[in-house]
Amino acid sequence: MTDSPARRKPRRGLTGRPALDSILAELARADRELEERIVRREPVYRGHYMTLEKDAIVRPDGSDSSRDIVVHPGAVVVAPLDPQGRLLLVVQYRLAAGGALLELPAGTLDIHDGIPEDPEAAAHRELEEETGYRAGRMELLGGYYSAPGFVTEYLSLFLATELRPAGADRLRPDEDERIRTVALDWREAVTAVQTGVIEDAKSVAAILLLARRLEASGH
Amino acid sequence: MTDSPARRKPRRGLTGRPALDSILAELARADRELEERIVRREPVYRGHYMTLEKDAIVRPDGSDSSRDIVVHPGAVVVAPLDPQGRLLLVVQYRLAAGGALLELPAGTLDIHDGIPEDPEAAAHRELEEETGYRAGRMELLGGYYSAPGFVTEYLSLFLATELRPAGADRLRPDEDERIRTVALDWREAVTAVQTGVIEDAKSVAAILLLARRLEASGH
Repeated sequence: MTDSPARRKPRRGLTGRPALDSILAELARADRELEERIVRREPVYRGHYMTLEKDAIVRPDGSDSSRDIVVHPGAVVVAPLDPQGRLLLVVQYRLAAGGALLELPAGTLDIHDGIPEDPEAAAHRELEEETGYRAGRMELLGGYYSAPGFVTEYLSLFLATELRPAGADRLRPDEDERIRTVALDWREAVTAVQTGVIEDAKSVAAILLLARRLEASGH
Repeated sequence: MTDSPARRKPRRGLTGRPALDSILAELARADRELEERIVRREPVYRGHYMTLEKDAIVRPDGSDSSRDIVVHPGAVVVAPLDPQGRLLLVVQYRLAAGGALLELPAGTLDIHDGIPEDPEAAAHRELEEETGYRAGRMELLGGYYSAPGFVTEYLSLFLATELRPAGADRLRPDEDERIRTVALDWREAVTAVQTGVIEDAKSVAAILLLARRLEASGH
C-alpha cells in the first residue's frame, strides 16, 4: 500500500556532532525495528482540508494495533520581522481554544490537483493575506510536526524580511477568517511567550528559535 | 449550549508590561467581537481518546460558518533534567510522521468518570511510564495549544528534577507503545532543535523555554 502524499517523513541530515549523529543512528534503527506498517486504511471523515482515517498497523515483531490519524496537507508559519525589529502577529478567535489567541501568521498548504502547494509560495501568500505585507526575502528557518501522535501536519517555518505594504490589490484573508494584526518588538514577543500571553505551540517554537538566532548574531 | 469540558479556554493574567497588557486587552476585545458561538454540534467520530465534531457557529456580526474540531482531553509534556544537566528524551515511531521522532516524554490526560486527570499527576505518571524514572520535584513551566486551528489539545509543560529510578515495580508504557530513552545534555538538546534532529513542536517549544530559564539563572 502506498503512503498518503500528505504524510511527510522525517528528513534527517548528519550534524557532525557525535552525540547527535549517534541519536540519528538510533532514530534510523527505530524506523526499522519499531515501524508501524499500514495494512488497511479506513477513511472515517473527509473535511474541508483534513481527513480522519483509522489505520490498521503491524510491527516487525508481528504485533498489531490501530491508530486514528488526522491527515493534513501541511502548513507554514511565518515570522515577519520589520527593520525596527518588530514581529507582526495576528489575533484570531480560535474555536478549539474557546477564545482569541495571539499567533504568528500561518496557514494550510493549498492543494491543486492533489499536489500540495510549495511551502515558500504558501508563506508569501499567507503573509499577505493575514497581514497585508509582502516580503522581499523569505528564508526557511526549520520546521516541526504540530502533534505527531495523531496529526500528520508538518509546519515549515519561514523568516520574512524586507517587508512592504502590499497596496490596494492585496490578497485578503479567506472569507471565513477574521484577523487583526499587532506589531511587537521581538524581545517583547519572547516575554509574551514566557508570560503565557502567547499560548500557541507553533508560535512559541518559532519565536524562541528566531530569538536564539538574533541573539547569536548580536541583536 | 454548554461547552465541552475538554475545551480549555485561555487563562490570561496581567503582566505589568504596557505593550503586553495592551495586547491582553486586544485579545479580550477579540473574545467578544469575533466570538464563534457554537449553535449546533454534530459528532462525527468517537475514537479512543479523541472525538471529531463538526460545529456550526455564528459570530456577533451575524455571519455563520462551520468548523471541524478534534476534541482532545489535553496532555502534558515533561522535561526531565538530571543533576548532570541531561534531559531524558524518548524515541518513538510516529505513524503520523511515517518515522521515528525524538521527543520529550508526554501523554494524554486520563479521563475518569468524565473528569480529566490532574496535569501534575499525569506528568508523574507519564515520566515513570515512558522513562522508568520518578521525580522528587515537578514544576509547572507553562503550556500551549498544539494546533489551535482545529484541535482542542492544550499541553501543560513540567520541569521534572530530583530524578531517581522507579525500581522493579515501575509503571510501564501503554500496551500499544514502544519507547526507547536517550539522555542528552540540555545544551546539546538545543543544538538538536536547531539542526532539525528534534522535529516535534511541543518538544521544540519546551526545550527552548527551559534553555532560556537555565541561561537566565547562569547555567
